[in-house]
Amino acid sequence: MRVLIVGANGQVGRLLVTQLLAKGDEPIAGLRPDEDGEDWEDLGVAVRRLDLLTKPEHIASALMGVDAVVFAAGSGGRTKDDMTLLIDLDGAVKTMQAAEIAGVHRFIMISMLFAEDRNRWADPLKSLYVAKFYADNWLVHQTNLAYTIVQPGALSFHPATGKIQSDPLAVGSIPRADLAAFMVAALHAPQTIGKTIPLLSGTQSINQVINQL
Amino acid sequence: MRVLIVGANGQVGRLLVTQLLAKGDEPIAGLRPDEDGEDWEDLGVAVRRLDLLTKPEHIASALMGVDAVVFAAGSGGRTKDDMTLLIDLDGAVKTMQAAEIAGVHRFIMISMLFAEDRNRWADPLKSLYVAKFYADNWLVHQTNLAYTIVQPGALSFHPATGKIQSDPLAVGSIPRADLAAFMVAALHAPQTIGKTIPLLSGTQSINQVINQL
Repeated sequence: MRVLIVGANGQVGRLLVTQLLAKGDEPIAGLRPDEDGEDWEDLGVAVRRLDLLTKPEHIASALMGVDAVVFAAGSGGRTKDDMTLLIDLDGAVKTMQAAEIAGVHRFIMISMLFAEDRNRWADPLKSLYVAKFYADNWLVHQTNLAYTIVQPGALSFHPATGKIQSDPLAVGSIPRADLAAFMVAALHAPQTIGKTIPLLSGTQSINQVINQL
Repeated sequence: MRVLIVGANGQVGRLLVTQLLAKGDEPIAGLRPDEDGEDWEDLGVAVRRLDLLTKPEHIASALMGVDAVVFAAGSGGRTKDDMTLLIDLDGAVKTMQAAEIAGVHRFIMISMLFAEDRNRWADPLKSLYVAKFYADNWLVHQTNLAYTIVQPGALSFHPATGKIQSDPLAVGSIPRADLAAFMVAALHAPQTIGKTIPLLSGTQSINQVINQL
């Protein structure tokens, strides 16, 4: 499966590209025009350039011919310059619109645990929750994409455990490596389409969680 | 008509309250808990407190029993602390949800010219356009409110001229006093319901523009 990762140099993006490669998929690293793509090219991974501050029509040209798009970009700490609005919200929605323009049907979004429930938004991240809430909402209500919205708990750098849960009432964290592994599996699991999936460390295997969806 | 103005101490909000009062309507000044409402009480205008950072259910308690809500709040220059996301976008949407909870059907939103067209968003205000775009979109697609979205050009402090236009291709400015006068008229004009209306200084009277809708 040809999977374009928007934000391939990000902390989750890097794991996604390497794990897709290991699984025999064909990841494509989606990078900003000014980002370093040499590491990916050395690994034989194609790089495509896309700028989330441009129009959907421009972004679409980087999505042509792929089977799926994963939105793994994020403004990171750059909230002071309004990048939460321009990247995490409008950049995500423009990527959805670009996927529709490019005829790419499958779309996986990395969101945040409880993004759909304002009562659970923790204060230091509140503006990022707002962005994720409206981006997820657009994906569900205003596109025809075959979407999966993955809502992980707090992301850690711990090594992968292979053990997760998707209890909608649970709170906690998950290693980025487990999140990436779940997403690689989700790309090949049609039962994840049209679902919003909370994701935390737990006691089940990835296959068990997916089979219960 | 009992009209609650969210953001009554703002530059447009103040004009709306005084113009509604002059027309024989019953404006209610919606203010933050920490804002000064004495001026309004001296004028005989009721003050209700509402905090756009709280839940829709809390905001709804300030909207009970009114005939219409006007969203005239804005984060102003407070973009650095993410208030664009929290007030202009999520605060607006929470006010819409609050109106629905309170059973208030009529809702007038102050948006911005070209908020629905990304290609026309001017750079210094881009993040505010993003907020207005998603707030307007929610009002149209995800509420059952009898909405009017007013999209003025650049706001000036010039005195009212009474002469406006609503040409969707025009560019320019409009005095805040003319914007307020249009909104007061729109509250009493059912043909403005369900419409998104660009608004600029022009050569027509307010009644002419409304009658052409």
